[in-house]
Amino acid sequence: MRYGHRPGRDKRITTHVALVARAFGANGFILTDVVDKKIMETIRKVEERWGGKLHVEMGVDHRRYMEKWKRENGIIVHLTMYGLHIDDVIDKIRNTNRDLLIVVGAEKVPRYFYDIADYNVAIGHQPHSEVAALAVFLDRLFEGRELHLSFPNAKVIIEPCAHGKKVINVGEKETRKN
Amino acid sequence: MRYGHRPGRDKRITTHVALVARAFGANGFILTDVVDKKIMETIRKVEERWGGKLHVEMGVDHRRYMEKWKRENGIIVHLTMYGLHIDDVIDKIRNTNRDLLIVVGAEKVPRYFYDIADYNVAIGHQPHSEVAALAVFLDRLFEGRELHLSFPNAKVIIEPCAHGKKVINVGEKETRKN
Repeated sequence: MRYGHRPGRDKRITTHVALVARAFGANGFILTDVVDKKIMETIRKVEERWGGKLHVEMGVDHRRYMEKWKRENGIIVHLTMYGLHIDDVIDKIRNTNRDLLIVVGAEKVPRYFYDIADYNVAIGHQPHSEVAALAVFLDRLFEGRELHLSFPNAKVIIEPCAHGKKVINVGEKETRKN
Repeated sequence: MRYGHRPGRDKRITTHVALVARAFGANGFILTDVVDKKIMETIRKVEERWGGKLHVEMGVDHRRYMEKWKRENGIIVHLTMYGLHIDDVIDKIRNTNRDLLIVVGAEKVPRYFYDIADYNVAIGHQPHSEVAALAVFLDRLFEGRELHLSFPNAKVIIEPCAHGKKVINVGEKETRKN
């Protein structure tokens, strides 16, 4: 869940957040309080070529969404440099086996988020990037398995290559090597 | 090293790349072919509060820089979804013990980069984000130690906090707990 998106200014960062969510194994991407069609278009264009179907909601009321999430027994993880260090909480979070709503904000996040979150988690205590924070959190959560994801209905897949690009059209005579 | 930056359009993404470089333990940030003072200002503003002094160069000719890097016995790692999977190369790269130039491009990267790179490395084979790619690469390279970095001359440090923010002014009577 991305909070605090300002269309225009944040378009590319929020797009990267959504693509990281998809590529690193999240089930969905929630954009609060605004609808941004450009971002929706980008997600759908990526899926058309690379497969999968991310659950996307936009314009949801962030308070109502989070409160409902908790009522339905999910837990909320808010990524913030002020939180507890990821090394100290990731195993506990993984072992809850409950649905996780991972929240990343833009620059200023109201106190409310720190309070409602079950876990405020710091991907280190230095300022950097919500895109990086989400990626590293999911990489640790899934213990690297997410970097081997493939998606249903992909039109193309990549064959890893030391120098250059090899893209294979799924359904043509070539098949994937690994 | 960030290639293909378009001032205006890429300002925020490139800023995130630079902040990830700093926060995840890189020694420097190189912006090729253009100078972007806004990005320099943001880096210096972060350093003023959070410490450290990143080596920054802007406007360097990317070919000349990479060729010099190799002549001086460094190696070049280009992050691209078309490369070899990080799991298959990270140990080898870490064990070279040579200076690494980690290259992230914007959307289109000329063939030249794939050829000159000693390693083309994929942080998974799905499209996502150069910010995420750099963060996960450095996290794997440094095996998570980078998320415990602190920087000299920081004016403030964070005390990890389950709910809320605790920022300690260095030099005041409070001291850091850990």
